[in-house]
Amino acid sequence: MAQHNAFYAQSGGVTAVINASACGVIEACRRHADRIGKVYAGNNGIIGALTEDLIDVSRESDEAIAALRHTPAGAFGSCRYKLKDIETHRTQYERLIEVFRAHDIRYFFYNGGGDSADTCLKVSQLSEKLGYPLTAIHVPKTVDNDLPITDNSPGFGSVAKYIATSTLETSLDIASMCATSTKVFVLEVMGRHAGWIGAAGGLAGQGEGEPPHLVIFPEVAFDRAAVMARVEACVKEYGYCVIVVSEGARYEDGTFLADSGNTDAFGHRQLGGVAPTLAGMIKQDLGYKYHWAVADYLQRSARHLASKTDVEQAYAVGEKAVELALAGQNAKMPAIKRTADEPYAWTVEAAPLAEVANREKFMPREFIREDGFGITEACRRYLSPLIQGEDFPPFANGLPRVAHLAKHRVERKLPEFKI
Amino acid sequence: MAQHNAFYAQSGGVTAVINASACGVIEACRRHADRIGKVYAGNNGIIGALTEDLIDVSRESDEAIAALRHTPAGAFGSCRYKLKDIETHRTQYERLIEVFRAHDIRYFFYNGGGDSADTCLKVSQLSEKLGYPLTAIHVPKTVDNDLPITDNSPGFGSVAKYIATSTLETSLDIASMCATSTKVFVLEVMGRHAGWIGAAGGLAGQGEGEPPHLVIFPEVAFDRAAVMARVEACVKEYGYCVIVVSEGARYEDGTFLADSGNTDAFGHRQLGGVAPTLAGMIKQDLGYKYHWAVADYLQRSARHLASKTDVEQAYAVGEKAVELALAGQNAKMPAIKRTADEPYAWTVEAAPLAEVANREKFMPREFIREDGFGITEACRRYLSPLIQGEDFPPFANGLPRVAHLAKHRVERKLPEFKI
Repeated sequence: MAQHNAFYAQSGGVTAVINASACGVIEACRRHADRIGKVYAGNNGIIGALTEDLIDVSRESDEAIAALRHTPAGAFGSCRYKLKDIETHRTQYERLIEVFRAHDIRYFFYNGGGDSADTCLKVSQLSEKLGYPLTAIHVPKTVDNDLPITDNSPGFGSVAKYIATSTLETSLDIASMCATSTKVFVLEVMGRHAGWIGAAGGLAGQGEGEPPHLVIFPEVAFDRAAVMARVEACVKEYGYCVIVVSEGARYEDGTFLADSGNTDAFGHRQLGGVAPTLAGMIKQDLGYKYHWAVADYLQRSARHLASKTDVEQAYAVGEKAVELALAGQNAKMPAIKRTADEPYAWTVEAAPLAEVANREKFMPREFIREDGFGITEACRRYLSPLIQGEDFPPFANGLPRVAHLAKHRVERKLPEFKI
Repeated sequence: MAQHNAFYAQSGGVTAVINASACGVIEACRRHADRIGKVYAGNNGIIGALTEDLIDVSRESDEAIAALRHTPAGAFGSCRYKLKDIETHRTQYERLIEVFRAHDIRYFFYNGGGDSADTCLKVSQLSEKLGYPLTAIHVPKTVDNDLPITDNSPGFGSVAKYIATSTLETSLDIASMCATSTKVFVLEVMGRHAGWIGAAGGLAGQGEGEPPHLVIFPEVAFDRAAVMARVEACVKEYGYCVIVVSEGARYEDGTFLADSGNTDAFGHRQLGGVAPTLAGMIKQDLGYKYHWAVADYLQRSARHLASKTDVEQAYAVGEKAVELALAGQNAKMPAIKRTADEPYAWTVEAAPLAEVANREKFMPREFIREDGFGITEACRRYLSPLIQGEDFPPFANGLPRVAHLAKHRVERKLPEFKI
C-alpha cells in the first residue's frame, strides 16, 4: 500500500503520561513503516501545524522515543488553542490542508482533552468538506477525567495516585503534630467542574474516621456552616481534620470560593487559592491552627509516582490510534472499556468522536456520600483500579531521567501564516 | 550489667524519615536486651513523659517496628513544646525525674531539631543537678538542615530530593505550556531562615539556562526590581521562567514577603503564601500568566520519594544514639561526618550537645551564586550526594504501606501532672 506521513500534536494541559501516549503513537508508526513514512510532531501543538513548525520525529533515536514513556509533560510542546468553526474561519482549515498536502500528511493524531476532541472532530471533517484525504484520530488525555464514553482518561490515574498518596502522607504528618500544633490541613487539588481528583484523595482513608475527613467537591454546593460543623466535630473526635478541596469548589449560586480573576485562551476562569481561602475561614470561625498546600502542577507532572495502570493505558490508546487510522477509521477516539472491577480488566475500543466532543463527564451522584463530604464504596470500586501498580522512572544522580529529544525541524515549504 | 529502660520521643516538625531514626533506636535497643529492658515512647513527644503517657514499644512486633523505616511522619506523635529553664521551672524537671524513676528509665533519646537539642541538653544536666542517673542523647532531625556540626540533618535529604524532582517535573510542564499559556511558575518551599531546601530545587537544573531560573533565598534580601528584571529576561530568552522561593524570603529590612500573622509554640512566626504573593507581583509588574504551588507538608512527608542516603543516615543516627548511651556518653548527638564527596562517604560521630543546642547553620555565602538567584558548584557538590538513591516504600492497593502500631499504654504509677 501507499506510504504517507503522520502528524502528532499535544494539546491543552499536559499530564504525567501524555508522552507515554506519544511513545505509543510513534512506536506503532515505526512498526508500520510500510504505510507510515515520517512522523511529524507539531511544535507546540496544533500551532505547529498552522505555522508549518514541524519536528521530524523520524530523526529521533529509538532510545529517545522509548524514554518518552517515563517523561512527564509534553515533550513536543502543547498549546491552549481552539480552532474556530470551519464555516466562519475557513482560512485556518485551508491552511492546515495546505501544510498537510505540502508534507504528504494523511494521518492526524491529536492528543488532548474535551476541547481538543472538538478540534479533532473539525479536522476529521476536512476530508469531506475540503476534499483532502485525511484520517483524524483523537488520543484521549486529561487529568480531569471528564471525557465521556471512555471509562477513564489517561493522565487521571497518575494524578489520582499522587493525590491519594499525598493525602495519606500529609495526614500522618498532621496526626503527629496535632496534640500541640496544627489541627487542620487543607490540600487543594485540580478539578474545575468535576470532583474526580478530589475523590481520589478519598482513597487515602480506608476505614471509619480515617483521613481525609472531608472532600469538598465542585458538585456539592459549599455550605460554610455545614463544613465548619464537620471540621469542628473531627477535631474534637480525632484531634485533627484533613480536608481535600477541589479548585472548583463553589457556593450554591455558582460563585467559586477562589477566583483569580483571569481567564485562559479557552475562556475558562483561572482558579487557584481555594486552600488558603478555606483555611482562613476555618481560622476565623473556629480558631484552629492550620496548614495548607496547593499541589497545582506538582500533581499533574508527578511522573515519579505514576500509576502503572495509567502508563499502560496511555501507551495503549496511542498505539490503538495508529491501528484505527490504518484501518481507515476517521473521526474516532480509542476509549478505555472496563471489563471487570476485580481483578481489574480493560480493553481499548473505538468511540465516535462526534459523541466525545464538547461533552463533560461529571461524577455520578452515587459516587458522593450522602453528607456530601466523602466518597462512596461505588466510587472506591471505580477509582481503586486506576491507581494500581507503580512504574517508577529510571533515576540518575538522584533525579528522574527524562527524554532528551533532538527536535530537528522540517524544512518549511510554504509562506508564513499568521495565527 | 544491670538492665534499665529507655525513653524515646519525637519533637518538632516531623519528616519523611524520623520514623527511620525511631526504627534505628528501637532495633538497636532490642539488640541490647541484656542492658535495655523496655523501650517506652512518649505519646506526643516530651509531653508524654511529663504526663506519664507512655507507649510500651516493647509490645510492638518486629514487623511493625521494621515498617517504621518506610513510614513518614511521627508514629508516636510529636510536639512543639520547649522546656523552660531548669532554674525557673524546676517542677517540670522534677516531674521528668519522677516519671523516669517510676518506670526505671535511665536512657533518654530525644529526636528533634535545634529547639529539641536545647531541651535534650537541659535533660542531660538532670543527672548532675538533680542527682538522677540518666544518659541523654539527641537524635538529629530537621528538614531545614540547620543543625550545626553534623554535615547534614536527617530529613533534609528526602525533602531535597522531593523538591529537586518536583522542580524538574513542573519545569517540563510549564516548558510545554508556555507558547500559548502559563509563562511563570512559582514553587514555594520550606525554609524559614536558611535556604537549604530552596537550594535543593537548584539541583534540577544541570546546564546553562535550565530551570529553575531563579531560587529566592532568605539569605538574600528580596529586591523586587532585580527579581522582575530577571524574570522578564528569562521569559524573553527561554519562553518561560521557573522560580523556587523559600517561605522565609524577606526584604532588606527583614520583613517577610508573606506573613500569616500567627506564631507557633516556640514563638516563631508562621509563614505561608509567598508563592501567591510573588506570583501576584509578577502579574502586576510584567503581566505574565502564572501558576503557583505551595508544597507545605507534601514536601516533608513525601516518604514515597525519600532519598536512600537520607533513610540510611536517619537509621544510622538512631542506632548510634543507643551505642553512645550504652557507652555512657551523656549529652551527645550522633553527627554525620562527610569523609568524601565523590564517591560520597560518611560516618557517624558523637558531637557534644552543648555545641549543638540553639545554634543555627546558615547556607555559606559561597553556596549562593553571585547574582543571588542560584546555587554554585560548591553547593551542588555538597547537596548532590544527599539526594542519591531511591528507597521506595512497599505499596499495597496502589498506596504506600505504612506501619500500624498497637500503641499499648504503660500503666500510670503517679498522680496527674498539668503542663
